[in-house]
Amino acid sequence: MHDDRPLVALTMGDVAGVGPELIAMAWGQSPLRSLARPLVVGSRAVLERAVRHVGVDLSVESIDDPALAVPTAHVIPCLDPTGDGLSDVPPGLVSGRAGRASYDYLVAAIDLALADRIDAITTLPLNKESLRLGGIDHPGHTEILAERCGVVEHAMMLYLDHPGGGEGGVAVLHATLHVPLREVFGLLTIDRVASKIRLADEFLPPLTGGRAPRIAVAGLNPHAGENGLFGDEEETIIGPAVDQARAEGANVVGPLAADTLFVRAFNGEYDAVIAMYHDQGHVAVKTVGFDRAVNVTLGLPIVRTSVAHGTAFDIAWKGRPETTSLIEATRVAARIVAGRRALGATSAASP
Amino acid sequence: MHDDRPLVALTMGDVAGVGPELIAMAWGQSPLRSLARPLVVGSRAVLERAVRHVGVDLSVESIDDPALAVPTAHVIPCLDPTGDGLSDVPPGLVSGRAGRASYDYLVAAIDLALADRIDAITTLPLNKESLRLGGIDHPGHTEILAERCGVVEHAMMLYLDHPGGGEGGVAVLHATLHVPLREVFGLLTIDRVASKIRLADEFLPPLTGGRAPRIAVAGLNPHAGENGLFGDEEETIIGPAVDQARAEGANVVGPLAADTLFVRAFNGEYDAVIAMYHDQGHVAVKTVGFDRAVNVTLGLPIVRTSVAHGTAFDIAWKGRPETTSLIEATRVAARIVAGRRALGATSAASP
Repeated sequence: MHDDRPLVALTMGDVAGVGPELIAMAWGQSPLRSLARPLVVGSRAVLERAVRHVGVDLSVESIDDPALAVPTAHVIPCLDPTGDGLSDVPPGLVSGRAGRASYDYLVAAIDLALADRIDAITTLPLNKESLRLGGIDHPGHTEILAERCGVVEHAMMLYLDHPGGGEGGVAVLHATLHVPLREVFGLLTIDRVASKIRLADEFLPPLTGGRAPRIAVAGLNPHAGENGLFGDEEETIIGPAVDQARAEGANVVGPLAADTLFVRAFNGEYDAVIAMYHDQGHVAVKTVGFDRAVNVTLGLPIVRTSVAHGTAFDIAWKGRPETTSLIEATRVAARIVAGRRALGATSAASP
Repeated sequence: MHDDRPLVALTMGDVAGVGPELIAMAWGQSPLRSLARPLVVGSRAVLERAVRHVGVDLSVESIDDPALAVPTAHVIPCLDPTGDGLSDVPPGLVSGRAGRASYDYLVAAIDLALADRIDAITTLPLNKESLRLGGIDHPGHTEILAERCGVVEHAMMLYLDHPGGGEGGVAVLHATLHVPLREVFGLLTIDRVASKIRLADEFLPPLTGGRAPRIAVAGLNPHAGENGLFGDEEETIIGPAVDQARAEGANVVGPLAADTLFVRAFNGEYDAVIAMYHDQGHVAVKTVGFDRAVNVTLGLPIVRTSVAHGTAFDIAWKGRPETTSLIEATRVAARIVAGRRALGATSAASP
């Protein structure tokens, strides 16, 4: 029987971190395999060590072709691009060899995705310092993905599925992200805010069943400026950006006071929130859905999600790390792929 | 039998708003009366109208002396300072008469508290514009409280009881509050941050059973600056403030990344968080505990809590407003009073 669940490659990330054991722990949980057809891109030997470490009844099956992946509750298909067992990499420590390997796994998965041999990539964490020691000049996943895909413009989206327990998820995009807070004021422009609204409007339909996403834009200041009393960026930048995006067809409202906006979104009123800066969006998502938040990279020609945590070297290979983020990241990757297929089928079926 | 539950005056606020009906609706719910001995300071006639409007089996009993208040499931003791039935005040509209009356109720309650004839005040919302039309020059509750109490320095604390469902609550204080975000940078100083830590350290023991509050301070920038990569206020201002407060005896850590700090506090790791600006704290509290957040005014010689919502003129006298915030505000006022008594008794009993 043909298995048409989306083929999602889990890249192992840094083998000294929590990635390998997370895969072993999560594998037995049916949510990982209910929507997706997962396979691992990483070291087969490390994965076998992780299976033994976690103490689960699993066998690792080497594959060369993702099309041959037959994941079951007891079999992990693994595509090992390097064949390196990395047995001398100590757990929980920075290592150039592990850094280089994490890069190799990622690049192998990107190339498979670009060749349409897999449907999506879900990445386990890597370590910036190990990457650097391994001779890789990129600070992290996103930059490697952008370069390998030949993309300049990309953006990070936080996605929280079913935040209120009901149907649907909430996406959070940021007008500004990894910059000092005091630089936000110089970066905020009508075009920048409007472009994030457009990005949400274009990306989200596969996650909303094809419906135009309902987008809300947060204000920058307390109470969204309270009619100019607490700042004017709402009137000079954010309001005009919302007007512009609405004129272009987006279903968007704002600027709205950030403190009460997210709870309304999480209760089902909006599909996406555009936050003005890092903590505004991250505080809301992480406080409500700490382990369930998923990173999604927008602007790539391939589907990529990521767990929202790091390598956790402090607990790697000695504890029981939380698998929720990996399961959610895999589910969301599969949902995006399945949603795109459904919309594509609809479009094709339409006159 | 002597009733030693804290005597908490609920000030009616603006009679055109949701205050009167919220009192009528909440009264029958035992949490309102389980920890506190509540009475109403406001218009007896309006309260009777609200009881009929809500359709509950309650009688309003006029009292002149709070000591004579005997609240039961079916009797609301009401102290009416003006005797004005305000029958010509239209629901849901701005009105100078209602504004003036809301001021009179508040002042009467403040004077009772200052005279130790009540233990605490929980305020229902008033309307700034109605206040102004009523000839009152203050923008809101806090300024009236500060003037009547002869206090210059005061601060607002958000309190969320049992955020994770377990024991204990979390207090959020703000280094800066109702100012444009771009003014935060000029206002943040070591002294300002340290003073908020001290304020939390001094105020909270009645709410932590006497234990020194565990205080966490948020960073200003993404990832708390990530070692200077995203800003330096963590190193130049917040860190030194934490060090200073710790040297003075506070149990305080920080600066910590804001996005993961609040969930740790809500899960029981900290009793208080010092946020650097309005939305950082408010997004966390409102997103997790929208209806349960309580405002507490620090720096007054009396105990005052407030519901965390406004007059809601759009739904006043026609819907079923949410009573949770009123119940929580009353409970928290009673907990502060009871906690102070317990600590006072402990101190007195000590050698």
